[in-house]
Amino acid sequence: MGVKIGIIGAGSAVFSMRLVADICKTPELAGSVISLMDIDEERLNAVHLLASKIVDEFGSDIKFEKTTDLEETIKDSDFVINTAMVGGHNYLEKARAIGEKYGYYRGIDAQEFNMVSDYYTISNFNQLNFAFNVAKLIEKLSPNAWLIQGANPVFEITTLISREVPIKMIGVCHGHYGAMDIFEKLGLKNENVNWQVAGFNHAIWLNRFEYNGEDAYPLIDRWIKENENKEFKPRDPFNDQLSPAAIDMYKFYGMFPIGDTVRNSSWKYHYNLEEKKKWYGEPWGGADSEIGWKWYQNMLLEVTKIIKDFAKLVLENKNKKLSEIFELALVGNRLEGHFEEEMRKILNPAQLSGEQHIPFINAIVNDKKTKLVLNIMNSGIINEIPGDVAVEVPVMVDKNGIHPEEIYPKLNKRIIKYYLYPRMIRMEMALEAFLTGDIKLLEEFLIRDRRTTSYEQVKNVLRELMELPENKNMKKHYLK
Amino acid sequence: MGVKIGIIGAGSAVFSMRLVADICKTPELAGSVISLMDIDEERLNAVHLLASKIVDEFGSDIKFEKTTDLEETIKDSDFVINTAMVGGHNYLEKARAIGEKYGYYRGIDAQEFNMVSDYYTISNFNQLNFAFNVAKLIEKLSPNAWLIQGANPVFEITTLISREVPIKMIGVCHGHYGAMDIFEKLGLKNENVNWQVAGFNHAIWLNRFEYNGEDAYPLIDRWIKENENKEFKPRDPFNDQLSPAAIDMYKFYGMFPIGDTVRNSSWKYHYNLEEKKKWYGEPWGGADSEIGWKWYQNMLLEVTKIIKDFAKLVLENKNKKLSEIFELALVGNRLEGHFEEEMRKILNPAQLSGEQHIPFINAIVNDKKTKLVLNIMNSGIINEIPGDVAVEVPVMVDKNGIHPEEIYPKLNKRIIKYYLYPRMIRMEMALEAFLTGDIKLLEEFLIRDRRTTSYEQVKNVLRELMELPENKNMKKHYLK
Ligand SMILES: NC(=O)c1ccc[n+]([C@@H]2O[C@H](COP(=O)([O-])OP(=O)(O)OC[C@H]3O[C@@H](n4cnc5c(N)ncnc54)[C@H](O)[C@@H]3O)[C@@H](O)[C@H]2O)c1
Ligand SMILES: NC(=O)c1ccc[n+]([C@@H]2O[C@H](COP(=O)([O-])OP(=O)(O)OC[C@H]3O[C@@H](n4cnc5c(N)ncnc54)[C@H](O)[C@@H]3O)[C@@H](O)[C@H]2O)c1
Repeated sequence: MGVKIGIIGAGSAVFSMRLVADICKTPELAGSVISLMDIDEERLNAVHLLASKIVDEFGSDIKFEKTTDLEETIKDSDFVINTAMVGGHNYLEKARAIGEKYGYYRGIDAQEFNMVSDYYTISNFNQLNFAFNVAKLIEKLSPNAWLIQGANPVFEITTLISREVPIKMIGVCHGHYGAMDIFEKLGLKNENVNWQVAGFNHAIWLNRFEYNGEDAYPLIDRWIKENENKEFKPRDPFNDQLSPAAIDMYKFYGMFPIGDTVRNSSWKYHYNLEEKKKWYGEPWGGADSEIGWKWYQNMLLEVTKIIKDFAKLVLENKNKKLSEIFELALVGNRLEGHFEEEMRKILNPAQLSGEQHIPFINAIVNDKKTKLVLNIMNSGIINEIPGDVAVEVPVMVDKNGIHPEEIYPKLNKRIIKYYLYPRMIRMEMALEAFLTGDIKLLEEFLIRDRRTTSYEQVKNVLRELMELPENKNMKKHYLK
Repeated sequence: MGVKIGIIGAGSAVFSMRLVADICKTPELAGSVISLMDIDEERLNAVHLLASKIVDEFGSDIKFEKTTDLEETIKDSDFVINTAMVGGHNYLEKARAIGEKYGYYRGIDAQEFNMVSDYYTISNFNQLNFAFNVAKLIEKLSPNAWLIQGANPVFEITTLISREVPIKMIGVCHGHYGAMDIFEKLGLKNENVNWQVAGFNHAIWLNRFEYNGEDAYPLIDRWIKENENKEFKPRDPFNDQLSPAAIDMYKFYGMFPIGDTVRNSSWKYHYNLEEKKKWYGEPWGGADSEIGWKWYQNMLLEVTKIIKDFAKLVLENKNKKLSEIFELALVGNRLEGHFEEEMRKILNPAQLSGEQHIPFINAIVNDKKTKLVLNIMNSGIINEIPGDVAVEVPVMVDKNGIHPEEIYPKLNKRIIKYYLYPRMIRMEMALEAFLTGDIKLLEEFLIRDRRTTSYEQVKNVLRELMELPENKNMKKHYLK
């Protein structure tokens, strides 16, 4: 069945290409119209051009439109995907630098159980506000549409919108695929593994892990015994699923942290670059160190450049196939990490990206029953967590909606009390600050920060942050 | 009706004299036997002598026994009051010094929302263990007896025992009388005030405050407006109920913190002596600064000395009245604070001390309906808090037991989420550490401490703490 899907922030290079290709590879969505929206016309044009070429080459019955107008994208949409990051990485770095100037290593948003470097919960007012406005526009213009929130902070935004705006929404992340790294390392066949994860976004734990019907945790324990004294050698900064940090967290919490959860640990592993290296491996010290994050930013720049080159070459080589043109685009571009492989996957008509956005849409629209791991309101799924907090849990999706699985075995008490609770408290403060504009909440957030040594420091860092030209609205909101 | 009451730690000077006098002033308890127990015979003898003299002078029908044997005190008791502090202030200071050596200003037990300097939740294993053993002895020897826990940490111990030992118990504290300071300052007649407090021990908030049937919070607001620019001049380190810290907390949380809650604030007011002075007044910077606590310790020493002198003089002046002998005891002793006034109150047959222990017993034994503020298992009283956590709440007590009042208005969300939740998390860690002996929990407790800058620091401070001769059992428990 054909639907209209709006993609906001469609210029987000890797992300958009994955979604665009997934749509073209989903025959059940034939007849759909995809409205690509971004404020960056150059990026938007590149993605749009590539999307159109993919349609041609795959012979898909999909129409791609592009616009810089938010309302136009939302109007008549059945699904709105929000992947925009307001201010971009540039803003994140500016805000982080101000934090560091006042003694907050890796910025004020780097917090116990939230170390992910583009997951700003308090200094990117614009990001929360943008997502909130998208939701309110959906309510106004397309009240039956689903909002699929992919841009971070997914935990905060999903909770915020689900509480405050009466629309249908989910938050999506691919972090739970980290579990596959474990299965692979243990030499298990994915299809014989019975597994579950549960928690909050970037805070999920492998509560169920069975292989051929039997508890498979002993396999992890054995692997650890055999490997923990070997040097840990990550292939890239994100390759941390079996890092010393992950194993140490497992030993304390009794269940394995999955995906970005490994990054979202306590300060024990993050005090400084040296500690980060010890726990997340040399030379980067994980994705969120000053070195690891630089690596990631460089990769994003390279990818953005390649996408642009790629688009240009597509125009110049009308008769060549995409995969050939891509090899041309690679010439003169140096790519780190797994992006090449990733891009070849995108261009392969037989492979889906693994992003959950399009399978979710297909499940809802065409009743294609699909198991996903989504962020939705808790309402009793994890019963020690309040009902009005977004959890990330396994669900079955079909035309009747989202059906959460029973979480069994339950998450360990240590995870609930010592990990999810403190993370939840910070979410609550960030949201209350956002909704009320009471600067005392931002202050209190920082007073509880381990890097704070005086109230002056808190006031100063917030003051300087709000003086950024990008933060005019934030300043108005908090210093009225 | 006559009952047997055991008082453990009966040498605790002020505390015991208050209880002893209260019993003698409660005619309904005629025929009771009080078993005073302590390991410090000198203190025990002094209290016992004074107790006997009070009986004589007041003509009470109460029998005081003394013993150094714990089982003897518990056996056949109907009520067991535990006010013992294992290791005494000496131990607290030793442990605090080790903390400070490793960078933990005011010791490792000084934590956000628990700054009270004799409220050790993790470094006094012996204290938790002693209380736990008292409870298990009660279960064994006098399973129908009530345990009245007065020694700190009341929050942790009440939760621990209520969860783990099937006996009847309450935790008691007099912190809620701080509310009277407010009423007095505002010129209100206590009997016309309708008030409630709720929360955890040392973490209670004035959720209800009405005067002559009307909301009385506007009176506080007016008082603040008129007074907040005047210099705050406490009469002693504990005189903080209307300190700048209390007012600042009120402004953030929307309800007034009562009693020790004012001390149990965030680091904002406690970073260092200078900040403490700013928020709790000169010259002490509150009870929990290095100066304020020294003041308190000196006072306790003076009181202990006076009690001993007093007892000696009682022996030498058999025909004099207590109040005359007390004036003699004062000669040559310098007393700070309100202890003199306090002692005169104790010797006045018409006045109860205000401690809740004896009124509680009288209510249970003689059906004398009494409103008290007690620590009991939550079971739905504050519904955002789990049922198996001890809360401090207003209750009515009679022969049928304890009847909690409905908490109305409910505690503000900020209090629940930003104050009680974090406090509860630390309680849970302390109790799990105590019960399991898993040193990782003590470590994790400190990893989350704002003063920790490396994992080494955590391991070192714990190692040195466990090397204290007093901590042989602790070491065995955690380093098995
Ligand atoms: N959920 C996941 O699995 C996952 C994975 C990676 C990244 N992310 C998140 O996705 C988001 C995007 O990350 P990125 O690295 O691609 O960022 P990016 O800055 O490269 O891309 C974001 C896009 O949003 C656009 N944009 C900015 N403001 C906009 C506005 N007002 N309206 C429309 N578009 C706007 C930008 O022009 C850009 O093209 C981030 O929040 C990131 O944390 C999520
Ligand atoms: N709930 C309240 O309202 C309140 C108020 C003030 C103090 N406290 C608490 O009361 C407790 C006592 O404080 P303090 O300043 O009087 O201390 P303290 O050290 O002066 O007195 C405690 C008594 O316990 C005795 N003791 C120690 N180990 C013992 C054992 N194994 N068996 C029997 N007795 C033993 C000591 O000999 C001493 O006489 C502390 O936990 C303190 O925090 C409670």
